[in-house]
Amino acid sequence: MRIDILTIFPGMFAALNESIVKRAMDAGQVQIVITDLRDFAHNKHRSVDDYPYGGGPGMIMQAEPFFLAVEHLQRQASSTGKVILMSPRGERFTQQKAAVLAKEKHLILLCGHYEGIDERVQDALVDEAISVGDFILTGGEIPAMAVTDAVVRLLPGVLPQATVTEESFMHGLLEYPQYTRPAEFRGMKVPQILLSGDHGKIRQWRREQSLLRTLLSRPELLQQVKLSDSERQMLLAEAARRKIELLL
Amino acid sequence: MRIDILTIFPGMFAALNESIVKRAMDAGQVQIVITDLRDFAHNKHRSVDDYPYGGGPGMIMQAEPFFLAVEHLQRQASSTGKVILMSPRGERFTQQKAAVLAKEKHLILLCGHYEGIDERVQDALVDEAISVGDFILTGGEIPAMAVTDAVVRLLPGVLPQATVTEESFMHGLLEYPQYTRPAEFRGMKVPQILLSGDHGKIRQWRREQSLLRTLLSRPELLQQVKLSDSERQMLLAEAARRKIELLL
Repeated sequence: MRIDILTIFPGMFAALNESIVKRAMDAGQVQIVITDLRDFAHNKHRSVDDYPYGGGPGMIMQAEPFFLAVEHLQRQASSTGKVILMSPRGERFTQQKAAVLAKEKHLILLCGHYEGIDERVQDALVDEAISVGDFILTGGEIPAMAVTDAVVRLLPGVLPQATVTEESFMHGLLEYPQYTRPAEFRGMKVPQILLSGDHGKIRQWRREQSLLRTLLSRPELLQQVKLSDSERQMLLAEAARRKIELLL
Repeated sequence: MRIDILTIFPGMFAALNESIVKRAMDAGQVQIVITDLRDFAHNKHRSVDDYPYGGGPGMIMQAEPFFLAVEHLQRQASSTGKVILMSPRGERFTQQKAAVLAKEKHLILLCGHYEGIDERVQDALVDEAISVGDFILTGGEIPAMAVTDAVVRLLPGVLPQATVTEESFMHGLLEYPQYTRPAEFRGMKVPQILLSGDHGKIRQWRREQSLLRTLLSRPELLQQVKLSDSERQMLLAEAARRKIELLL
């Protein structure tokens, strides 16, 4: 997979040179190309922004540098790719969306800044807009890193198979609690069952913990999860006891 | 404000040395301190992880380095601060939450990695857990950057007052479209009203555009927004015409 990122702050993406994304790049599983949008500004100050039509605070990023840069990258990669604008107005990014994007061959992520981007970019250049959440950031760079990280770790071979299997088993649920050594730390002990060596019971306990945590914090997620009959009964009983509204 | 970030990948946070966050640091509006968790590992390999009790894939981050590091930072800052774990299990981060955190004097953000963090960190060290969304990342570093960026831009004096006023006017709505020069680009023209110079009408058009875009993409947000009677009627009529379910 090739991921292009178009930004006026290329230095920020040093953050991708760490951890699993770095390993995936080294292994050739993904090629991440950071391009400075200013290279496509045809004026002597390399400026890519101008005042908003109609007035208002701040500056707006101009359309032309985005069009020229995307067209350049598409020629370079011999691929139109999927052109994605990081935007608070976009579709909400989720793990399901990450899985869909991980099947693409070529993504081109556009990072906005200042007060926004000329609307004609979204009208005529972008295939879709993605938002990472209902909060305002100074630019699209951190969201682009989030999308890149979430997508890259799903590419075949990037994560160990055991991790992929475990995540799919717990799919859509909040994580169960994890413990490592020491067995007692400042008086706090690891739950006895995890020391029992009974792998069937441990697996069941972990699944129950995930179900209960999801019920307490994010009950709406349970509607998307495949449940056994006994799990459904356990959750409904627990919800009734705790007066949590739950439709399963 | 002081923001401490505790991580095993301190190099990733070079991404904060740009843009508005960098300016806020230079102006003394925020102090951001990145601490390497490995400095609190008391073993010769500086390792901070170990196998999970009960088995399973991957490694778990140990409790002790987090406790020692947080206690060190609290002594250094003469403040307990608010200790926040970046965690997919946490409360969903929103703009409202960013505004609440921006009122704090001292935040300590903990970034997990690998398969997770020993649960005793969340049980006894952490004040709250925050999630940026329903997607899986390789670590808490990118979420910590998102929280830092969203909070810092809300600190007094960091953004121009005109931007703050405009954001509060549009509070809870998706952004209206913005345009900058040229007035025509590849045959696409800027809406005529923005060239009219009639600031009252421009303001009304922008508000309507925000309302309509919110109706089309995120109708549930409208329930949290203060609407005038005529706005409510316009939205209900538009929703009926487009067969969108809307309760106002």
